[in-house]
Amino acid sequence: MKDTYIKELTQIELNNPILIEGLPGLGLVGKIATRYLIKKLNAKKFAHLYSPHFPYFVLVNKKGNVRLLRGSFHFWKNKEGGNDLILFTGDSQSQTIEGQYEIAGRMLDFAQKHNVKTIVTIGGYRREAKDKPKVFAAATVQDLLDKALQAGAAVSNSGSPIVGTAGLILGLARFKKINALCLLGETRGYLPDPLAARSVLEVLKTTLNFEIDLTGLNEEIAKAETMVTRLQKIEEKRALQAEETRKEEDKKTTYIS
Amino acid sequence: MKDTYIKELTQIELNNPILIEGLPGLGLVGKIATRYLIKKLNAKKFAHLYSPHFPYFVLVNKKGNVRLLRGSFHFWKNKEGGNDLILFTGDSQSQTIEGQYEIAGRMLDFAQKHNVKTIVTIGGYRREAKDKPKVFAAATVQDLLDKALQAGAAVSNSGSPIVGTAGLILGLARFKKINALCLLGETRGYLPDPLAARSVLEVLKTTLNFEIDLTGLNEEIAKAETMVTRLQKIEEKRALQAEETRKEEDKKTTYIS
Amino acid sequence: MKDTYIKELTQIELNNPILIEGLPGLGLVGKIATRYLIKKLNAKKFAHLYSPHFPYFVLVNKKGNVRLLRGSFHFWKNKEGGNDLILFTGDSQSQTIEGQYEIAGRMLDFAQKHNVKTIVTIGGYRREAKDKPKVFAAATVQDLLDKALQAGAAVSNSGSPIVGTAGLILGLARFKKINALCLLGETRGYLPDPLAARSVLEVLKTTLNFEIDLTGLNEEIAKAETMVTRLQKIEEKRALQAEETRKEEDKKTTYIS
Amino acid sequence: MKDTYIKELTQIELNNPILIEGLPGLGLVGKIATRYLIKKLNAKKFAHLYSPHFPYFVLVNKKGNVRLLRGSFHFWKNKEGGNDLILFTGDSQSQTIEGQYEIAGRMLDFAQKHNVKTIVTIGGYRREAKDKPKVFAAATVQDLLDKALQAGAAVSNSGSPIVGTAGLILGLARFKKINALCLLGETRGYLPDPLAARSVLEVLKTTLNFEIDLTGLNEEIAKAETMVTRLQKIEEKRALQAEETRKEEDKKTTYIS
Repeated sequence: MKDTYIKELTQIELNNPILIEGLPGLGLVGKIATRYLIKKLNAKKFAHLYSPHFPYFVLVNKKGNVRLLRGSFHFWKNKEGGNDLILFTGDSQSQTIEGQYEIAGRMLDFAQKHNVKTIVTIGGYRREAKDKPKVFAAATVQDLLDKALQAGAAVSNSGSPIVGTAGLILGLARFKKINALCLLGETRGYLPDPLAARSVLEVLKTTLNFEIDLTGLNEEIAKAETMVTRLQKIEEKRALQAEETRKEEDKKTTYIS
Repeated sequence: MKDTYIKELTQIELNNPILIEGLPGLGLVGKIATRYLIKKLNAKKFAHLYSPHFPYFVLVNKKGNVRLLRGSFHFWKNKEGGNDLILFTGDSQSQTIEGQYEIAGRMLDFAQKHNVKTIVTIGGYRREAKDKPKVFAAATVQDLLDKALQAGAAVSNSGSPIVGTAGLILGLARFKKINALCLLGETRGYLPDPLAARSVLEVLKTTLNFEIDLTGLNEEIAKAETMVTRLQKIEEKRALQAEETRKEEDKKTTYIS
Repeated sequence: MKDTYIKELTQIELNNPILIEGLPGLGLVGKIATRYLIKKLNAKKFAHLYSPHFPYFVLVNKKGNVRLLRGSFHFWKNKEGGNDLILFTGDSQSQTIEGQYEIAGRMLDFAQKHNVKTIVTIGGYRREAKDKPKVFAAATVQDLLDKALQAGAAVSNSGSPIVGTAGLILGLARFKKINALCLLGETRGYLPDPLAARSVLEVLKTTLNFEIDLTGLNEEIAKAETMVTRLQKIEEKRALQAEETRKEEDKKTTYIS
Repeated sequence: MKDTYIKELTQIELNNPILIEGLPGLGLVGKIATRYLIKKLNAKKFAHLYSPHFPYFVLVNKKGNVRLLRGSFHFWKNKEGGNDLILFTGDSQSQTIEGQYEIAGRMLDFAQKHNVKTIVTIGGYRREAKDKPKVFAAATVQDLLDKALQAGAAVSNSGSPIVGTAGLILGLARFKKINALCLLGETRGYLPDPLAARSVLEVLKTTLNFEIDLTGLNEEIAKAETMVTRLQKIEEKRALQAEETRKEEDKKTTYIS
């Protein structure tokens, strides 16, 4: 394998499909959101993306079976006649600069082949404040951005870069005459963040005007919050101990001088 | 996108054009100088350069619109009959070694196609002394260098390398039978340096014998100087505090022994 | 040399051959195991694999002769009519990501050309417990895995990656319709580990149903154990001294405060 | 420029030429030795090697003229009817792994084109002992190695790698049916080492059976020795001061406990 390539498992005909992309990144926001959609919509896998720019290891499943790192395309037939969906997620982003451009490029070729006119990419955004996590939006065309803003997103901060596949797909989409929107969920980023993923999905469903029940994420969110609280307590305890130690040492020093 | 490529937005006919290049680098000297020329001459964009060797992120503008990192070519029609200008600047230099050579190579192909006979590249040069910042010149042919020296530049120090696109264009220009000059403005380099950019432009306008009002840079220069002064004061204060702390600690130690 | 390539030294006809691969990695398990097979079976070299992705140095032998880093294919004719073997080992793994994919790909092309239907790759696995080192197995098909499990292997831990050539060959084998099994011997990993290599070979010979005397590894195992014991004693002594030093310093501190 | 390439400046006919290569490396041994040969033999430049794998900067000469990093081939006509020489040196080695293989490969293509049957590469070897610096030899064929040993070289240590172009040329020479010898001069390596270069040239002239006066290196050797002595004195002084400081601090500590 010298280049990134996409292997189609079944030939399908889709009705005006929209592609939604979410690879691992900050807080795993994109991956959690896309996986939830796939599971909830019971979307079916129809193609794999392989690349020599992925890390050079393979994964073992519970049965001892092995596979390459890859991305997977799933489709969902919209029975109410609206847009069908193509949902893409995977194990990893490219490990090289050129690979990042190559993978985003191949995905766009594939989207074009399947007559995709609109792409939504999902990612995380480093959260500074402690308020409710926002969702930031950026797009290649104004009307797509407007829809996201009406659905509750804020305009992505000017000047702040969108890194990786979620960003490059937007950058390269222009050349294929495909419109693209990027939704970034605010996240602390150091742990998988289903809360940020849910925020993004809330914006997404209104933007694209389709129904999906998001309560299935609540349990995961509760678990993640417990984990964060536990880590914070450990952190606070450590800080306290460090403070104690510092005071002890200060005392010693005071006695001396 | 597997290779660097240039996308022309409009077809133009230029009269004996000179190409001026200034990408981000030390003190942003090249970029500030070229952007000033573009703005002041009201030059028009006519081509973009894209490369998979640029960093793998996209930029968001104030309106939430997204674009790839790129370089941009602008043209200016000289109404007095002298050389037209092509002005090139961009967001970034290549992140890989091979990309550096590839991008400089593509720019030269493009220059050749547009019948360019002379190129001037602009960059920064690490400033050692505290005197008025000099402009250093290096060239592929003697008469171009002589013009720059007569215009106030000093000969670039022998042995000191010119790094990145500004240098490689000169190195590769020979193979295309294009003459090239590099002007490096002395700069501290850790902040955008419009003063160094103005010094370069003063040399440039005399070298190429065209008129341009540089007073538009003065405000930016004043702002940059205020910033530098402020940073220096913070630095001095820090140094003083560090000195105090050191003395305190010395005292303690003295008491002990 | 722009690409990895395989140079055949002699043309051979093999009977339903199985390829066994063992390159340097954790504890050198794969290399020690494969080299032992080659020596014990008196397998003959018939091809070399060269790659610009190997490290850029050459090796000197005792006679002052020089050669590139490379991999070597050996064959063994099974006189009892069962599967012949192709045994592959080498000096190094690829130093680049793309090279890892390229080398595994070329090996599979070569295997296909020689009508290989089954590949076994050998590697090391970081050992946590102090018990007898286990052998972990993963495979592309269930019946191959089952054979390894019946031969004493445990199922490789789900989620833990198999890094490098031993893993990628399994990942890529699918595309060539070749079945592949990976055997990983548990090892501390910081020293060559012939004990782990023997554990793997015990599983391998039962899995593939061929006879080989493994007592030839015992001397090497004894030597390695002596080395480990010696290193552990040095380590313990160091730890004791560090403890002593710490206590001395504690005393001083106590006197002060 | 996407690949390494060689640009011939003049067409020459050489009589059974031997290629001698010396690029920058440990102690600059190869470059100093080759440059001395070029100067002393008054060899003429006839080709340049350029590569996108060299570092991405250009060099400025005293006149303010600019050029790419490159390697240069020079030729020397042997008036006594023996082998002519091709002498190769340059500014830098490749900065990438693949580039190392590519450059060595192109040099061998070029050598083959000019009917070269023998290549000698020159480099440095990390010196451990304080004795007179030795010259180590390794070769692709025994008789070439024997000649070097008879000329005073020692057999290169088995197992120790020869890194970079000097090594890869030997590794790749086999495929072109060219014989190659590598001579490594022992050197401390942290400073340019003309003494090691002279040791290599002494072996080289006997091995290839041609006359050259090496006294021209003596002045450079004397200068280098002065430099080394000076650096050693500074080093010793530093060590002494550090010892003093340590004793002072020990005293303090003793007073306390």
